Amino acid sequence: METFFSFLERRVDDCSSLLCIGLDPHIPDLNEPTAASALDFCLTLIKQTAPYAAAFKPNAAFFEVFGAEGWTALKQVIEAISEESNRLGSRIPVILDSKRGDIASTAEAYSQSAFETLGADCITLNPYLGHDSVEPFISNPEKGVFLLCKTSNAGSMDLQNLLVLPMGSDSPSPLYIYVAQLAQQWNVNNNIGIVVGATHPQIMGMIRAAVPDLWFLSPGVGAQGGELELALKSGLRKDGKGILIPVSRGISRAANPAKAAAEFRDQIVNIKRDIFERG
Amino acid sequence: METFFSFLERRVDDCSSLLCIGLDPHIPDLNEPTAASALDFCLTLIKQTAPYAAAFKPNAAFFEVFGAEGWTALKQVIEAISEESNRLGSRIPVILDSKRGDIASTAEAYSQSAFETLGADCITLNPYLGHDSVEPFISNPEKGVFLLCKTSNAGSMDLQNLLVLPMGSDSPSPLYIYVAQLAQQWNVNNNIGIVVGATHPQIMGMIRAAVPDLWFLSPGVGAQGGELELALKSGLRKDGKGILIPVSRGISRAANPAKAAAEFRDQIVNIKRDIFERG
Repeated sequence: METFFSFLERRVDDCSSLLCIGLDPHIPDLNEPTAASALDFCLTLIKQTAPYAAAFKPNAAFFEVFGAEGWTALKQVIEAISEESNRLGSRIPVILDSKRGDIASTAEAYSQSAFETLGADCITLNPYLGHDSVEPFISNPEKGVFLLCKTSNAGSMDLQNLLVLPMGSDSPSPLYIYVAQLAQQWNVNNNIGIVVGATHPQIMGMIRAAVPDLWFLSPGVGAQGGELELALKSGLRKDGKGILIPVSRGISRAANPAKAAAEFRDQIVNIKRDIFERG
Repeated sequence: METFFSFLERRVDDCSSLLCIGLDPHIPDLNEPTAASALDFCLTLIKQTAPYAAAFKPNAAFFEVFGAEGWTALKQVIEAISEESNRLGSRIPVILDSKRGDIASTAEAYSQSAFETLGADCITLNPYLGHDSVEPFISNPEKGVFLLCKTSNAGSMDLQNLLVLPMGSDSPSPLYIYVAQLAQQWNVNNNIGIVVGATHPQIMGMIRAAVPDLWFLSPGVGAQGGELELALKSGLRKDGKGILIPVSRGISRAANPAKAAAEFRDQIVNIKRDIFERG
């Protein structure tokens, strides 16, 4: 049995990429506001970018908005990634970006929905409900989660930056550091990572110092203004892995998405070389 | 135009109830593990309990687990509540319990999914991503949200009980108090309430003291061990409203769900009389 992060690292080695292709069929980017058009959009993007994709990340909201037809399309998207993986001879992980979070039998149902009904390999989760809300998603080491820690948006200040005083401690630390450390403590099966926005490279560096081994999923490069080089310098682990860079519109809206994905991949390779070889 | 909580309060007056019927088609409670059986389960429960329901609360996870067919069933459940409301001559609010939380265009898509595609009146949201993640759901005062504040599960200790030190303050308070106060501050359209588990009546009392006017959605009575009387004593506002008591299995698994719902409603009426008349 291979843990989720061993599986991801194998794929990272196979494609020399830390790029995570976001499958976000925003209605304004579609030919028509329909589930069929959302499906077409994703299938084209998958075909064009698979060779450069360390992972694919479909965002549930943009399917859910089409109701039942959207859920059918989402399942077809995940199947198409599996077929493309077979064609390439290297399985590409699917991270369902749905930021779920609930308790007990409800969390069990969400886990079954993501991993069995849809067939995803990993899911993004909100940590606010605590360990028992995460447990049903991590009991199988082959399936992974990314817990929201410090998100890329302005509103992430409201709760995530609060100074907290853990029981028995007299030195306050930001909530995002506390959540990162909780994630590390819970990560006994090598299947928990955290979401750390690339829009806050300084904070990303602090979180990396607090949890040297965890994988980050770091949105915000491109459309949200985060810079690739700063993000990699702040977030990479010592082994040159440990950070997935999701890009959506930066690739899907390019004149040639295959070329844009290849360029992102090459930029990542070059920046890593700069960091590790030239110091 | 009527704000969401004016609408809810009108229904509370019409049915003299603070009972929120949870529509949780757990697979073990169904005749068959199918979306059709989940739909039947809910339609029967709606017909039996509508006269006593201040609101209905379908839980998205138990539909989502059936994929596209589940989403069709969820939409039909919400339509059935609307038809039953017409029959009773009093519209019953639908709270979609899906604990969503995302940013920017993704939050917009979830809002459109809940309020337009599905036709819900209100949604449960996770506050961890901050104000900009909530904004797309509250811009229309007719639609409401309940933000997770202090949930009913054991894991709610992990983050929600942390002592936080807000900027410029030197007295720490629990995160759940901070979230309740944020919700109050954001509630400029009378359409934000909070989720406060009935399993922690003492904490519920502290939160009520901090935010005297907000509506609570307070799960945990019955199956999770919370007591109705303690919850009402701790959470009711001075006007005898301000708390919705969701009950699922305590009613759906009763030999006679209509009778069980009527009894819950009567208990609520009696406890309120005790509190307000006998002091």
